[in-house]
Amino acid sequence: MKISNNDRAKILSQALPYIQKYAGKTIVVKYGGNAMVSDELKDAMMNDIVLMQSVGINVVLVHGGGPEINRMLEKVGKEPTFINGLRYTDEETMEIVQMVLAGKVNKELVQHLERRGGKAIGLCGIDGSMIRAQKLEDGVDLGYVGEIVEVNTKVITDTIADGYVPVISTVAGGGNGGVYNINADIAASWIAAELGAKKLILMTDIRGLLEDRDDEDTLIPMVNISDVPKLQRQGIISGGMIPKIDCCVEAVRKGVGRAHILDGRIPHCILIELFSDEGVGTMLY
Amino acid sequence: MKISNNDRAKILSQALPYIQKYAGKTIVVKYGGNAMVSDELKDAMMNDIVLMQSVGINVVLVHGGGPEINRMLEKVGKEPTFINGLRYTDEETMEIVQMVLAGKVNKELVQHLERRGGKAIGLCGIDGSMIRAQKLEDGVDLGYVGEIVEVNTKVITDTIADGYVPVISTVAGGGNGGVYNINADIAASWIAAELGAKKLILMTDIRGLLEDRDDEDTLIPMVNISDVPKLQRQGIISGGMIPKIDCCVEAVRKGVGRAHILDGRIPHCILIELFSDEGVGTMLY
Amino acid sequence: MKISNNDRAKILSQALPYIQKYAGKTIVVKYGGNAMVSDELKDAMMNDIVLMQSVGINVVLVHGGGPEINRMLEKVGKEPTFINGLRYTDEETMEIVQMVLAGKVNKELVQHLERRGGKAIGLCGIDGSMIRAQKLEDGVDLGYVGEIVEVNTKVITDTIADGYVPVISTVAGGGNGGVYNINADIAASWIAAELGAKKLILMTDIRGLLEDRDDEDTLIPMVNISDVPKLQRQGIISGGMIPKIDCCVEAVRKGVGRAHILDGRIPHCILIELFSDEGVGTMLY
Amino acid sequence: MKISNNDRAKILSQALPYIQKYAGKTIVVKYGGNAMVSDELKDAMMNDIVLMQSVGINVVLVHGGGPEINRMLEKVGKEPTFINGLRYTDEETMEIVQMVLAGKVNKELVQHLERRGGKAIGLCGIDGSMIRAQKLEDGVDLGYVGEIVEVNTKVITDTIADGYVPVISTVAGGGNGGVYNINADIAASWIAAELGAKKLILMTDIRGLLEDRDDEDTLIPMVNISDVPKLQRQGIISGGMIPKIDCCVEAVRKGVGRAHILDGRIPHCILIELFSDEGVGTMLY
Amino acid sequence: MKISNNDRAKILSQALPYIQKYAGKTIVVKYGGNAMVSDELKDAMMNDIVLMQSVGINVVLVHGGGPEINRMLEKVGKEPTFINGLRYTDEETMEIVQMVLAGKVNKELVQHLERRGGKAIGLCGIDGSMIRAQKLEDGVDLGYVGEIVEVNTKVITDTIADGYVPVISTVAGGGNGGVYNINADIAASWIAAELGAKKLILMTDIRGLLEDRDDEDTLIPMVNISDVPKLQRQGIISGGMIPKIDCCVEAVRKGVGRAHILDGRIPHCILIELFSDEGVGTMLY
Amino acid sequence: MKISNNDRAKILSQALPYIQKYAGKTIVVKYGGNAMVSDELKDAMMNDIVLMQSVGINVVLVHGGGPEINRMLEKVGKEPTFINGLRYTDEETMEIVQMVLAGKVNKELVQHLERRGGKAIGLCGIDGSMIRAQKLEDGVDLGYVGEIVEVNTKVITDTIADGYVPVISTVAGGGNGGVYNINADIAASWIAAELGAKKLILMTDIRGLLEDRDDEDTLIPMVNISDVPKLQRQGIISGGMIPKIDCCVEAVRKGVGRAHILDGRIPHCILIELFSDEGVGTMLY
Repeated sequence: MKISNNDRAKILSQALPYIQKYAGKTIVVKYGGNAMVSDELKDAMMNDIVLMQSVGINVVLVHGGGPEINRMLEKVGKEPTFINGLRYTDEETMEIVQMVLAGKVNKELVQHLERRGGKAIGLCGIDGSMIRAQKLEDGVDLGYVGEIVEVNTKVITDTIADGYVPVISTVAGGGNGGVYNINADIAASWIAAELGAKKLILMTDIRGLLEDRDDEDTLIPMVNISDVPKLQRQGIISGGMIPKIDCCVEAVRKGVGRAHILDGRIPHCILIELFSDEGVGTMLY
Repeated sequence: MKISNNDRAKILSQALPYIQKYAGKTIVVKYGGNAMVSDELKDAMMNDIVLMQSVGINVVLVHGGGPEINRMLEKVGKEPTFINGLRYTDEETMEIVQMVLAGKVNKELVQHLERRGGKAIGLCGIDGSMIRAQKLEDGVDLGYVGEIVEVNTKVITDTIADGYVPVISTVAGGGNGGVYNINADIAASWIAAELGAKKLILMTDIRGLLEDRDDEDTLIPMVNISDVPKLQRQGIISGGMIPKIDCCVEAVRKGVGRAHILDGRIPHCILIELFSDEGVGTMLY
Repeated sequence: MKISNNDRAKILSQALPYIQKYAGKTIVVKYGGNAMVSDELKDAMMNDIVLMQSVGINVVLVHGGGPEINRMLEKVGKEPTFINGLRYTDEETMEIVQMVLAGKVNKELVQHLERRGGKAIGLCGIDGSMIRAQKLEDGVDLGYVGEIVEVNTKVITDTIADGYVPVISTVAGGGNGGVYNINADIAASWIAAELGAKKLILMTDIRGLLEDRDDEDTLIPMVNISDVPKLQRQGIISGGMIPKIDCCVEAVRKGVGRAHILDGRIPHCILIELFSDEGVGTMLY
Repeated sequence: MKISNNDRAKILSQALPYIQKYAGKTIVVKYGGNAMVSDELKDAMMNDIVLMQSVGINVVLVHGGGPEINRMLEKVGKEPTFINGLRYTDEETMEIVQMVLAGKVNKELVQHLERRGGKAIGLCGIDGSMIRAQKLEDGVDLGYVGEIVEVNTKVITDTIADGYVPVISTVAGGGNGGVYNINADIAASWIAAELGAKKLILMTDIRGLLEDRDDEDTLIPMVNISDVPKLQRQGIISGGMIPKIDCCVEAVRKGVGRAHILDGRIPHCILIELFSDEGVGTMLY
Repeated sequence: MKISNNDRAKILSQALPYIQKYAGKTIVVKYGGNAMVSDELKDAMMNDIVLMQSVGINVVLVHGGGPEINRMLEKVGKEPTFINGLRYTDEETMEIVQMVLAGKVNKELVQHLERRGGKAIGLCGIDGSMIRAQKLEDGVDLGYVGEIVEVNTKVITDTIADGYVPVISTVAGGGNGGVYNINADIAASWIAAELGAKKLILMTDIRGLLEDRDDEDTLIPMVNISDVPKLQRQGIISGGMIPKIDCCVEAVRKGVGRAHILDGRIPHCILIELFSDEGVGTMLY
Repeated sequence: MKISNNDRAKILSQALPYIQKYAGKTIVVKYGGNAMVSDELKDAMMNDIVLMQSVGINVVLVHGGGPEINRMLEKVGKEPTFINGLRYTDEETMEIVQMVLAGKVNKELVQHLERRGGKAIGLCGIDGSMIRAQKLEDGVDLGYVGEIVEVNTKVITDTIADGYVPVISTVAGGGNGGVYNINADIAASWIAAELGAKKLILMTDIRGLLEDRDDEDTLIPMVNISDVPKLQRQGIISGGMIPKIDCCVEAVRKGVGRAHILDGRIPHCILIELFSDEGVGTMLY
C-alpha cells in the first residue's frame, strides 16, 4: 500500500461520524482464537483497542486462553479428560487454568496495551467480587466448570472511570471460597448486559454466520434475534455456532444495542466494523 | 482514490500515536485566507476541527474575515482609505467590521461545526471581557485599529470545559467603551500564549517559509526561533511573512510548544500536520 | 431627590424579602423598544441586569433590534417589502438582520454589562444549536422569517452555571444550514418555558394591558390566563397586544411562574417590579 | 419618609458597585452594646445581617452579652467582685456567663436570623475546638477570664460553605478541660485575622474615635494604624477606646483589609458603611 | 482485668463484622439519666461516641439534662410547679432550661468529644430551624412545653457531611418567635425517623423492658412493635416505660431499622450492643 | 480465653487513640513467609487487613509466594539452578513465577479479603505500568531477576480512592516488553516511599532484630537508622537480616514514617503493633 498523505488525511477525516457515534459508549470485546495466537493479528488488535480508548470509547476486554492452557497442562503432564466432549476440570486443572488466564495471558494483554500508550488493568472475576459463580449443574459432573450467578460491575465501572481498559479473565469465585472456570463468551455476554453496553463483539475464527457453512461467500450479515429459532431449525445455526449465537441473543435481549460475531482472522476487523459502513461479520440486533 | 476497507482500517490504526500525543492538549488555530473562501477547503477544515474535538483535542478557532468585510463595505458604498498601505478604520467601517466578523462569519463557522456534530460557541473579544484593547499608537492614526492590552482566558477555558469549541472574532472592547479591530494572527498568538497552548497554527495561502520565495520546492520545514533574526537579515523572511513569523516567535517565546505556518490551500492540511510524521508547512520552535 | 443615608439604608434593608424571593431563580427578560433606544433607559436597564445577577438571580437577556436593523438596511439602500403588513425577509435582508443582531446589538449589550462589572456572553440561536427553526409557513411566503422547532437550553444553562448572563439574539439555524429570523418575544417565551423560569418579562413601550387603550390610567394589573379569551373577544386585548399576550399565555401554560408586560419607558421598571409590592405593568398568571 | 417607587428603585440600583465590592468576601462583625439591647436597633441589625448574607457576603457574627449576664447574676444573687476595675470571674460566674452567652443570647440571635429567612448556626469557641484559651496571666488573678492561644477556623469556614451565618459566643475551652470567658472584641479580631477577612466591624455605643471626646462632631473618620501610637500619646485614644483600637490595629496588621468602629446606635449603620461612600464611624487601615 | 496483647488483638479482630455492619450508617443516641451524671459512665460514653465516629458511624447525639436544670432552678430559687405530675414551664423556667441545655450541658458534651479527638458541634432545635415546635395542647396548660411540628434535618446532615458529631439540645423555636422545651426522647425519635437512621438508642436507668418489673432477670430482649399493644394491656409496658416504648414504636414505624432501650448504668453499653451478638437491653423492631 | 462482654467493650474502647492515629494514613504491608503458609495465621492476617481497611487505614498489600512457586516448579519437573546462592531465573521459570504470583497467590488473597467483606483488587507491576524494571546487573547473570527502575503509584492511588485494598504481585514489565521478577521486600519499600506511606511493615519468620541471634529474648525493639552501619559492623545485622534492614532504611530515608520487621508467626501481630503501645518486632525510624 502506497497512499499519499492527502489520501491518508481524507480517510481519517471520514472516520468522524463513526467516532462521534461511539464516543462515551461501552463496547465489550471477547477476544480469543486466532486473533490471539498470531503475532500480527494480536499486534493489530492491541493497537485497535488503544485507538478505541483514545477516541473515547469505553472498551472492556474479556479474554480466553485455550492454547496457552493446553500448553501448560501438557507441561505438567496432565492428560485431558473429556465427558460427552466437554473437558472435565479437576482441581489441578483448575489451578493451571487460573494461573494461565489470570497470571499470564491477562497480564500479557495489559502489558501490550500499556506499551502502546493505553492504560489498562488486569482483572478476573474474583477482583472486587465481579463474577459470582457456582458449579455448573448440567447433568454431568464437569468438576470446576462454573456458571455465573451474579455479575457486579462496580470494579469494572470504577476502573473505566479511572481511565483504564479493564482486561478480564473469566475465572470466578464461588460462595464457598472455591474458584470456577467460566466460558468467556458467556461472561462477556453477561458483562455487556449488566453494563448496558452499546455493543458486544465476539471474535471468532470464521467469517460469521454462513448460509452454507462450506462457502464463506454466503455470509449472513444481519440477523434479527427473533429469527434465530427458525435459523436453528433450518440447521444454519448449528454446532459451535449455537452457543455463540445464544450469547449474542441473551445480550441483545437484556438491552445491549448490537452483538457481533467478527472474523478475528482479518487484521483490524474491529476498526472496519466500527469505523466504516461495511460490516465484516454477522450482526445480531 | 479507491482504497480497501483493510487499508482504511490500517491507516486509522496508524493515527494512534498522534492522537495520544495531542489528546487533552490545546491547539489554537488561526483560520483565514483561501481555506475560508473555497467551499471545498472550508468543508474539509470544519470536518477536521470537529474530528480534532472528537479525539479529545481542545481546539480554539480564531478567525479573520477580510473578503466578507470588503464585500459588505462595498455594499454600503464605503471607499477604503489606506495610510502607508494600512487600512484606515473609521467608526462606520469599524461597525461593519464588527457586524461581519462577530455577527456573520463567526456564527456561520459555529453553524458549520454544529451541523457536523461538533459543539461550538461563537465569541468575540468583548464576551467575558476576553480581550482588552486600546487604540494602536504606531506613528499614524489608523482609527479603530487596536492593539491588545490584556487577554483574559476565563471565558475560553469555561467554554472548553463545558465541551464547546470557542470560535473567536477578534473584535475587542476598550476601557472607554469603544470597540477595536484586532489583527487575527496577533490575537491568536496572544491567546495561545495565555492558554499555554501546545500549538499555534496559522493558516496561510502559501506553502510556508521559502528559501526562494518564487520556488515552492524550497520550503524550510523547521525554524528555530533563534535563527529568525538572521533569516530576516538574509531577506528570506520578508514582506507579509514578517508579521506572521513574529506572531509565531512571540507565541513560542511565551511558552507555546510549536507554532506552524500551514498552507491552507491543501485540504485537510491540519490533519496531515497533526496525524503524520510529514509536516506541511513551516514549524517554529 | 435628596435622600439621607439613613433613608437610603432603610430602603436597601426593605429589599431583603424580595431578594430572598428571587435568589437562585431564573428570570427571562425580553429587552427591546424604547428601553433599548434611549441612552438613559438603557443605562438604567444594564445596571439593573447586573444588580439582579449580583443578588443571585439567573438573568437571561433576549433582545430585539428593530431600529438598528432599519438603519442598516437603509444604509445598504434596501427597500423594505411588506406583505399583509409583515416584513418580507429576503436573503440579503436576513444577512443584515443577523449581522446587526448577533454582531452589533448583542455584543454592545455584553459590553455594557461587562463594563458595569457584570459577567456576560453574547449568544444567538446558532450557538450550541440553541434554537432550531424552520421557515414560517403561515399562508404567505415571508422569506427567511422562521418559527421555532426546538429549543435546547444546554448552552444557556452552561453559561449561567459558569456565572455569565447569556445575552441572546434570536437568529436561529435551520436543519438545512439556513438561517432564520425569529420573533424575539416568541423566542423569550420558548426559552423561559424550556428553562422552567420563574418569570418572563416582556419590555414594551406601553403601560401594560389597558381597559381603554387611550387611557393609561385604566391599566389592568393582573390577568389570569383563563380570562384571556374573554378579554380578546371584548377587544381589550387587540392589535399588537395580541401576540405579546399570547407569548405570556404560552409561557405560563408551560410552567413559567409569572409573565409580565412591563413599561420599558419607566427607568428601573424591572427593579420596581421585582423589589417592591407595587407592580408596574400587567402580570399574567 | 415618603419615597416614590422610582426613587426606591434608583437607590437600589445605586447599591450595585458596593454589592460587587463585597460579594464573596468575609466580614466579621462584633455585635454588642446598645445595638443589642434596643429592640428597634436589633431588628434593623438582624435584617441587615440577612441582607448581607443574601447578596453573597460571608458574615461572621461575634457577640457579647453583658446586660443579660448581669441580669442573670443578679437573679442567682451573685455579687460582682472587681479587681482593679476588672470583673473577677469565679467558677459559678463562669457557669452563668457560658449559659447566658452560648445558651441564650446566641440562640436568640440565630432565631432572629432564621425568622427573617437567613440561615444561621450558633457556635461557641468550644465547637470544633474553634478557640483554644488559657487563663489570662496579667499580674492579677481574674479567675476564669481567658486569653486566646489559638483560633482554628475550620468549623467557621465549614458552616459558611454550607450556607450559614456562624453566630459565635466567645466562650472557649482550655487544654485542661476548663472553660474561659474571652473578650468578644479580641475574639472577633483574632477570628477576622485568621479568616483573612476583608473587614472587621466593631459595634460600639459612640460615634467613633473623637478628636474631642465630648464633641461628637469631631469624629476622626480614618486612621492609619501607624498613627495610633501618636494618637494614644496625645490622649485622643484613651480609656475604653484603647482596647477597641488595639483590636483593630491587630486585625489590620495581620492582614484584615479594614477595621471599623461603628456607632451601633444608628439604625442600619452597617448598610450605610458598606453600601454608600459615606462612612459612619472610624475606619482603621 | 489482665489481658494479654494477643487476646486484646483477637478481641479487636472480632469486632470486624460489626464495624462493617454499621459503617456509613446513622445512629441516633438519646443520652440522659445516670449515664450522664456519673463521671465514670460519662467518660466511657464519650469515648464510645468518638470510637463510633472513628469507625465511620454517623452518630447523632441528642441529650437531656434534668439534674442540671433542677440544680439551676434551685439556685435562682424557683419552686417547681407540677400539674398532673407534669412540670409546668413558665417563661422564667423556660429561660433557665434553654440556658442549661443549650449553653452548658450541650457545650460540655462537645468539649468532652473534642478532647478525645472527636469532632463535634453543639446545636439546638433553633439552629438552621432544625426543629419547629408549637405549644403542647394536651388538655392542661403546661406553659412552654412544646410539641414538634416539623423536623428539618439539613443542618444535621450538613454537619455530619463536614465530619462532626451533631450534639443536639431539644430546645426548639416556634413560628411566633417563642421557644419551647421538647422531650428529648421524642425529639430523638423524630430525628431518627427523618434521617432514616439505622438505629435509635435510648439510654435509660433500667435494664430494659422487664416481664416482672421488680426482677431484672426477666428482661425481654426483643419486642416486635406489633406486640406492643398486647404488652401494654398486660401491664408489662407501664408507667415511665410507656412513652419510651412509644418513641421506639414511632421510629420503627417511620422506617428506623431498630430502636433500643439500653441500660446506661452499664459502662460501654453501646459498644456491647453494637459490637457483639449479645444485646444489653430491649430491642424493638 | 473467656472474656466478659464488659471487658470486651473496654478493650475495644481502648483502641480509639490508635484508630485515630492511623485513620486516613497509608500502610504498606509486605506479606510472606509463615504468615502466608499457615491457615490459622493467614485467616488472622486477612481478617486484620479488612479490619484496618474498615477503620479507615489505606492498606497496600505486597506479597511474595516462594513455597507456591517451588511447588509448581517441581510439578513441571524444573530443577532449580543456583549461582552464588541466588536462584537463576530462566525464561521458563519466570513464566511459572508470574503465573503463580499474579494468577494464583494474588487472586487467592483478593478472594480471602472479599469473602470477609473487604474490597480488594489484585494487581501486579504490569498493571497501569506500576513498576518498571530492568535486568538486575550485579556481576552475575541471574536471568529474569529484575531491579526496579521506576514506580508509578497512580494505579495504586486510584484503587485506594475507589475503596479497594490493592494486592500486589511483584512481577514487573521491562521497557523491552520482557517481564522480571522483583524481590517483594524491595518492591514494598519502593512503593511505601513513593506513596509517602506512614508505615512499612515487613512480615518475617523471626522475632525481629536480635542482639544474640540465638536468643529470642534479646530483641532490639527500636533502631535509629543512623545506627544501622554500626550494628552491621558488630555483626548484629547479618545474613538474611541485611537486605530486610536495608529495605527499611531506604524507606525511612525516603520519608516513610516508620519501618517494622514483624514476627508473622504471632497471630494478629499487625493489630498488636498498630493498636497497642507494645511493639512486637523491631521498629526502624
